[in-house]
Amino acid sequence: MPLLVMKFGGTSVADLGRIRNAAEKVRAEVARGYDVIVIVSAMSGKTNELVGWVNETSPLYDAREYDAVVSSGENVTAGLMALTLQEMDVPARSWQGWQVPIQTTSQHGAARFVDIPRANLDAKFAEGFKVAVIAGFQGVSPEGRITTLGRGGSDTTAVAFAAAFEAERCDIYTDVDGIYTTDPRITSKARKLEKISFEEMLELASLGAKVLQTRSVELAMRYKVRLRVLSSFDDTDEQSGTLVCDEDEIMESKVVSGVAYSREEAKLTLVTVEDRPGIAAAIFGPLAEAGVNVDMIVQNISENAQGHDKPVTDMTFSCPVDQVARARKALEGARDAGQIRYDRLEVDEDAAKVSVVGIGMRSHAGVAARMFSALAEERVNIKVIATSEIKISVLIDRKYMELAVQALHDAFELDKTG
Amino acid sequence: MPLLVMKFGGTSVADLGRIRNAAEKVRAEVARGYDVIVIVSAMSGKTNELVGWVNETSPLYDAREYDAVVSSGENVTAGLMALTLQEMDVPARSWQGWQVPIQTTSQHGAARFVDIPRANLDAKFAEGFKVAVIAGFQGVSPEGRITTLGRGGSDTTAVAFAAAFEAERCDIYTDVDGIYTTDPRITSKARKLEKISFEEMLELASLGAKVLQTRSVELAMRYKVRLRVLSSFDDTDEQSGTLVCDEDEIMESKVVSGVAYSREEAKLTLVTVEDRPGIAAAIFGPLAEAGVNVDMIVQNISENAQGHDKPVTDMTFSCPVDQVARARKALEGARDAGQIRYDRLEVDEDAAKVSVVGIGMRSHAGVAARMFSALAEERVNIKVIATSEIKISVLIDRKYMELAVQALHDAFELDKTG
Repeated sequence: MPLLVMKFGGTSVADLGRIRNAAEKVRAEVARGYDVIVIVSAMSGKTNELVGWVNETSPLYDAREYDAVVSSGENVTAGLMALTLQEMDVPARSWQGWQVPIQTTSQHGAARFVDIPRANLDAKFAEGFKVAVIAGFQGVSPEGRITTLGRGGSDTTAVAFAAAFEAERCDIYTDVDGIYTTDPRITSKARKLEKISFEEMLELASLGAKVLQTRSVELAMRYKVRLRVLSSFDDTDEQSGTLVCDEDEIMESKVVSGVAYSREEAKLTLVTVEDRPGIAAAIFGPLAEAGVNVDMIVQNISENAQGHDKPVTDMTFSCPVDQVARARKALEGARDAGQIRYDRLEVDEDAAKVSVVGIGMRSHAGVAARMFSALAEERVNIKVIATSEIKISVLIDRKYMELAVQALHDAFELDKTG
Repeated sequence: MPLLVMKFGGTSVADLGRIRNAAEKVRAEVARGYDVIVIVSAMSGKTNELVGWVNETSPLYDAREYDAVVSSGENVTAGLMALTLQEMDVPARSWQGWQVPIQTTSQHGAARFVDIPRANLDAKFAEGFKVAVIAGFQGVSPEGRITTLGRGGSDTTAVAFAAAFEAERCDIYTDVDGIYTTDPRITSKARKLEKISFEEMLELASLGAKVLQTRSVELAMRYKVRLRVLSSFDDTDEQSGTLVCDEDEIMESKVVSGVAYSREEAKLTLVTVEDRPGIAAAIFGPLAEAGVNVDMIVQNISENAQGHDKPVTDMTFSCPVDQVARARKALEGARDAGQIRYDRLEVDEDAAKVSVVGIGMRSHAGVAARMFSALAEERVNIKVIATSEIKISVLIDRKYMELAVQALHDAFELDKTG
């Protein structure tokens, strides 16, 4: 029996009416002859409510308890979805992470898949169940504690199941009808892409385009999972949405495919750090252990070098604003333990990141120059620059973020096809 | 290490402030040298919300999915309680039913305990954890599905843990400060009891006094668990609340200890049932299978006996109003299958049950007469009567319920001590 994975995000299951609507889409695929694995998120707003309670209870919470609390939202949706399908005479049952069992690492709040054994679900499909509804975003650790994959982890759950069960396709139903050249809320000139390469999608996802979670795209690329992003609110067919696929399949050949942004960034600078071999590891090791997602890193010659008998440097990095407290604690801990020395930590919490992405960059020079001059024309000051093979990112003042996105979208003529 | 079980109901954990308040009570017991097992309910209103969603999705729901959905409320509270205790420097962790594992039967929505293995919790206490926070009301079936014990099941969870771990005491913290002679909302003359026997509490609980769930009292009686009901909102000490204990300990010797009621009752009458040996089993078997909690049963000579060549009878029984649809379906199913024959099913959904309870009844005659005359004086018509060794119940029109409770409370002078 051919098998399909269908994933519905929070807004697609926000209330019972929308769950019914999503279930209709599942029923249609069952009618076409598919067995279906449905991955559900928590009803829109529920996870935020739970996270809010945890944060209010314990700002530096025990991540195991965080996971136990926060995973409950998906369990509710999974049960309701199974019931809705049953009402439509589609044989279905819900599965929580530990029931599959979805085996993950013990990295609570950011766990990674270890294995998704097929036996339990395969047995149910063999019994005649047409649909397995899986609570997304969660798993179980070797210690038997509930884990979560981090925000947006339901996409990753979907791709992991598609890979494990060799699904024909993995359809990600969400509140947008595809991947755009940039966020349409920022410029009405944003244009929907028919196809996008895994590599570009990866950069867009990791850079803050919130449609798909980074790890889900990584996983899809690694296991060649055909990934489709489409709207759960429209009538959809096999041509709907945006296909995320191998770059060979893509006919368009723009230098830049999209402009991404990430609004809540912080820039942290360790001033006058002792410059010795291993210092980067001494700094970023504790940050990684504390679960801080360090993004851009720049090492400068310190302006405060004078008066020090040993070589010193300034180390600048960016991370999400909500991880600044954690980062500060980790760095101070490392200093108190004598692992690193620095004069002070400067924190700028008013940053945003804007990036241009495109596989065409590989063969085209001058993209960076075009980007910097577009920003300069709008008098947007650049704090930090980082580049990869197919993207250029800049950290700027948050208040200029929309302006920068619009300017770059215009500069690279992303509103035009071909 | 002496061990205490403390259970907090929905209103006692209704928000983060109340969870903190409850956690303070736990911390105080830890400071007194106890290891503590805390049983928590869902935050007030959460279970109703979840049940509402299930009912709206699927009126005749799959009870396994119901359990998967509804159990999530307790998981949230358990995690938040563990975090709150950790913030107070009390070593604590949460446990969901399947993690203990709390082994139950497969009777979804009304599961019974099979075993509560001590090994996992004992190991954690040995490691220095002082508090195990258990999600109440749930367990796991032999098939690995989540089960629930039915509404109010958290009390039962508490008593079961107290029995399994040989707790010194099982304190049930709730929104009232003890057991009253009747519901104080119905008459201000209601008086708090210092002690009450297991037997009386059992009748009060099963008759609708909502303070303690029936099965929790049964279990407490069987395992001699010292049960205390007290308020989570007051400052409490070892004298607070009402102690539920063996009748030997009780000095008061009133004939009647309390007046209980149950508001949402329905009276169902199968008219002109074929009267043959085994007919009761043929009727109540299917009802039990359908999960209908049949309460009072009366068999009458049918007024419609004439014209039938075989002996016929009328069979009347009561059940909670929200089970009428289920009951009707079960009875019609049994008729369609040829198991029973009846002319019609009359349903009266406007009934309530009022009962007087007291161990003194065993040695005192005339209690029934006093009860019926008190009701007659208020012109309350009695639909059905049922009696046991220590209680007398009547089914009456719902609109007279408060009046009946007040009249009986007065008639048996329950406002006076001794």
